[in-house]
Amino acid sequence: MFTVQDIQELRNRTGVGMMDCKKALQETNGDMEKAIEFLREKGMAAAAKKSGRIAAEGSIFSYIHLGGRIGVLLEVNCETDFVAREESFIQFGKDIAMHIAAANPQYVSVEDVPASIIEKEREIATIACKNEGKPDAVIEKIVEGKIAKFLNEVCLLKQPFVKDPDHSVNDCLNELTLKLGEKISIRRFVRYELGEGLEKRANNFAEEVMEQMK
Amino acid sequence: MFTVQDIQELRNRTGVGMMDCKKALQETNGDMEKAIEFLREKGMAAAAKKSGRIAAEGSIFSYIHLGGRIGVLLEVNCETDFVAREESFIQFGKDIAMHIAAANPQYVSVEDVPASIIEKEREIATIACKNEGKPDAVIEKIVEGKIAKFLNEVCLLKQPFVKDPDHSVNDCLNELTLKLGEKISIRRFVRYELGEGLEKRANNFAEEVMEQMK
Repeated sequence: MFTVQDIQELRNRTGVGMMDCKKALQETNGDMEKAIEFLREKGMAAAAKKSGRIAAEGSIFSYIHLGGRIGVLLEVNCETDFVAREESFIQFGKDIAMHIAAANPQYVSVEDVPASIIEKEREIATIACKNEGKPDAVIEKIVEGKIAKFLNEVCLLKQPFVKDPDHSVNDCLNELTLKLGEKISIRRFVRYELGEGLEKRANNFAEEVMEQMK
Repeated sequence: MFTVQDIQELRNRTGVGMMDCKKALQETNGDMEKAIEFLREKGMAAAAKKSGRIAAEGSIFSYIHLGGRIGVLLEVNCETDFVAREESFIQFGKDIAMHIAAANPQYVSVEDVPASIIEKEREIATIACKNEGKPDAVIEKIVEGKIAKFLNEVCLLKQPFVKDPDHSVNDCLNELTLKLGEKISIRRFVRYELGEGLEKRANNFAEEVMEQMK
C-alpha cells in the first residue's frame, strides 16, 4: 500500500514526525497528496513543499543572449557531484544553453512531444499531399518523412549541435557520457524571448499595410 | 471578422504573402490557427512560428545560485529600449532574479493563482478550523486570514522583497515605475532546483528509517 520511502517523502514534504506520517498514509491508503491534506487538516503540517524527492546531481545553467532579448535556463543531470564539477561537464552545459538560444527547440526528446501535436502534423501533411495530387500509394511515406523532419526540428536531442553540426545533440551527449563514465542527461529547459506573445503598443507597420491593402 | 493586424500577424507567422493571408483568413472566418492550417495544407507555409506578436521592450535576466543548484530565468518588461538599458532597471532585474531564488514564489501575482488552488486551500483551512473546535462564527474570518497569508507567501509581487523586507516586491516595482517614468512589469519567471521531482538513485536514508520503524 505504501513504502518506507513514501513515509520518508511525506516527512520531507511536511516536516511532520515519522509516526504521524505513517498514520496519515494508513488513513489515506497510501495516497501521498491526500496524506498531506490529512496532516494539514489536523493542523500538523503547513503548506507542503512542491516535491520531496531528493536531488540528483548535476547543474543548472543559464545563457542570456546579448542585450537580454533571449534567455535560457537548463538542467543537466549526472550521477555524482564529482562529475558535476568536471570542466567538460560544465562546458557541455554552457554549450547546450547557447545551442537552445540559437536553435529554439520545443522539447528535449521525441518522447516529450504530445501525441496530439504529432497527429495534427500528420493530418496537415496528409491534406497537403492530397492537394498536391500525390498518389495515395506514396502519401504515407511522404507524410512519415515530414513527421521525421518535424521531430528533428523541434526536439533538442535530434537537432544538429550548433558547435558541431555533423553530430546531433544526442550524439554529443552520448560521447560525454562515455568520456565521463556516468550517465549524463539533459532534463529540462526553458527559453524566453523578450515580449513573445505580447502585443507591441504602437503598430505603425499595421497602418502601413492597411494603406497597401486599399 | 478579421483586421489588417490579423493579416499582418498571419504573414509574420507563416512568411506567406499578404493576399494569400487575406484569402486564408476569409476562408476560415478569421480564425488565425485555422488559417495557418489552411496555408499549410495548401503547401504554402511551413510550420508556423509560435507567436507572431512583436516584442515589448525590457530584458531577460538569469541568476544561478552558487554551484548551480538553483537557477532562475525572469522577464521584466518596460516600454522603451532606452529604459531597458538604464542602470536601475538592470539592477532591479538582477535583484528580483536573486529574490526568486531565495523566496521561491510560485506565481507572479494573485491573478495568476488558479481558482482551484485557492479553493483547495480554503477547504483544508476550514476543516482544520473545525478539527480545532473553533466556533462557526469565527471560522470564515480565520480561513480568509489563512488564504491571505497563503497568497502573500506564493505570489512574487506580495512577498517582502529580500533586499528591503519592509516593502513588498510590488512596492519596489511601483517605486521603480515612478522613478523611470514608464510602466515596468514583471511578466514571468521560472525557477529550477537541481533534481526536484527526481528520485535519488540510492536511498540509504530510507533503509535507516526502515530500521527505526521496525
